[in-house]
Amino acid sequence: MRHIVVDAMGTDTAPGPEVEGAILATRERWAEVTLVGPQDLLRRELARRDAHGLGIEIVHASEAVTMEDAAAKAFRLKRDSSIRVAARLVRDGKADGLVSAGNTGAVMATAKITLGVLEGVERPSLAAVFPNSKGTATVLLDVGANVDCESHNLEQSAVMGEIYYRAIFNVKRPRVGLLSNGQETHKGNSLTRETHARLKQLPMNFIGYVEGRDLYNGRVDVLVTDGFTGNVVLKTSEGVAEVITGMLKEALSSTTRAKVGYVLARRALQAFKKRVDYSEYGGAPLLGVRGVCIICHGGSNANALKNAVRVAAEFATGQVNDKIEHELAGASLGRT
Amino acid sequence: MRHIVVDAMGTDTAPGPEVEGAILATRERWAEVTLVGPQDLLRRELARRDAHGLGIEIVHASEAVTMEDAAAKAFRLKRDSSIRVAARLVRDGKADGLVSAGNTGAVMATAKITLGVLEGVERPSLAAVFPNSKGTATVLLDVGANVDCESHNLEQSAVMGEIYYRAIFNVKRPRVGLLSNGQETHKGNSLTRETHARLKQLPMNFIGYVEGRDLYNGRVDVLVTDGFTGNVVLKTSEGVAEVITGMLKEALSSTTRAKVGYVLARRALQAFKKRVDYSEYGGAPLLGVRGVCIICHGGSNANALKNAVRVAAEFATGQVNDKIEHELAGASLGRT
Repeated sequence: MRHIVVDAMGTDTAPGPEVEGAILATRERWAEVTLVGPQDLLRRELARRDAHGLGIEIVHASEAVTMEDAAAKAFRLKRDSSIRVAARLVRDGKADGLVSAGNTGAVMATAKITLGVLEGVERPSLAAVFPNSKGTATVLLDVGANVDCESHNLEQSAVMGEIYYRAIFNVKRPRVGLLSNGQETHKGNSLTRETHARLKQLPMNFIGYVEGRDLYNGRVDVLVTDGFTGNVVLKTSEGVAEVITGMLKEALSSTTRAKVGYVLARRALQAFKKRVDYSEYGGAPLLGVRGVCIICHGGSNANALKNAVRVAAEFATGQVNDKIEHELAGASLGRT
Repeated sequence: MRHIVVDAMGTDTAPGPEVEGAILATRERWAEVTLVGPQDLLRRELARRDAHGLGIEIVHASEAVTMEDAAAKAFRLKRDSSIRVAARLVRDGKADGLVSAGNTGAVMATAKITLGVLEGVERPSLAAVFPNSKGTATVLLDVGANVDCESHNLEQSAVMGEIYYRAIFNVKRPRVGLLSNGQETHKGNSLTRETHARLKQLPMNFIGYVEGRDLYNGRVDVLVTDGFTGNVVLKTSEGVAEVITGMLKEALSSTTRAKVGYVLARRALQAFKKRVDYSEYGGAPLLGVRGVCIICHGGSNANALKNAVRVAAEFATGQVNDKIEHELAGASLGRT
């Protein structure tokens, strides 16, 4: 069985969701789990719950990175932070992967510096996984690791995303699309046009330009964009869901019959919010680092953490990183 | 009264919505309207409707630009297209502004080449207007005129959008925000960081970075971004609305009571779709050209065209272009 470390101090209400998630994942036998954080606190939390015989271990870390900490500074100053201790365990081969719901910037920086990047990878890329209306998954990347990209960065993102999709979702030739402002070839900006020319050359099922709406309709499996645009897309989606909730509430609060409709509508909207919130799909893998690193939303619950442990174990078992190194070496991508 | 020309061959179902919209706008006495297109066809369309005594004129144009035409080619090859004839009327001072629901790229190119740009403006910027959940309007620009921007282009967009907002919505100090991947100053990419530094220096109510969700919550009046990102934001919003509609349909088709809820929910969703579709708010002004040019969605109905005629007349009356030239000259913006 795979061994996954969970940064126990990441969520907004840590360490409750982390401890609970670790227990659930261990019960399902998805992985052996080690929790990293203040050991007295974690011992008490485990003792309060029914965790006997599960073999969940604790590794002590005296500090925690907060949402207010700047990423680079957090890494430099908090040498005994739970995320840094967790990353060291992966680096030293004592675990197969890590899960953290902490400050995304700090987790990315810590993973990149502590674990290093894979052979041939210039920059890691954060991939968010969404279930779409066809019932399959769409991977959007990058959603925030690299806000300033050149075309070879997007090309590497595409290769890593495609390999991840194949390994995790068992699809032989996932459809890879490039996010643009229109499907026609003459659309796009200079970055997408350069990237389009690169992706056409690759031995993958590249379907060309796709649009923002295609994130949700199942037309594409791997949707490639830069970290700035990807993050804006994520947050715009959340905003639309919020305003629609508000409008529905207004429209459906008039009569009793309508209120029944509202309760049901709200359920559908909550389901949508979960789709947009990538943590619900087990967190976002940081592709390209030497090791397995799954990043969850700060508001994640125990269920999200549990799923993230599963994804981390599958990532390790699927040998995603070996495949990335192998294919990047074969394709001789990058600054060419 | 202002005199507005309407390209009668723009919408997907032209010239019905254009002719109808012209009649409605004239009846409301918002402007005198001239329709541009094949004169026999337009005469028949006017005769079929109750347009007597409204004084709607027709100017003949033998060609129409289609959605398939590439923008630059359409301009070069279709010298007698309805959009080009309409733009000439504005250029020659025979009308105060034009409205078109045609191929957006072709309309922008034609307006820019035929009318020219205002003194001090490097590139025009397309502004979309959304009602937000606070009941006010939010202007998002650029939504597609310039997909490759530098910071001085975004700066000019901000200035033009702010002036437009003041003139049309009668707000003294509209809040101007810069779209980014987070509100904190250390967020953003190199383009937004450079632009942030520029906007801070301007004599406007600049509130710093805002996020995609702020387009809908009324936190900001003028939301500045490049044309690539702005267009992606628009289309992502449409996609989210579509998938939520689908999920609601599923959730609410189970019982009769729920079905009643669905009918009401659908109404709210349609209202949201209208919000996202900028044409419903009277079309998107192309800011920075020497003249008034309002661009509508190809799927616009008569009501949208009517509103666009009103916006064009208000734009002319509000002397938006004089103000833009005056403020750009005073601020000595641009490539500095």
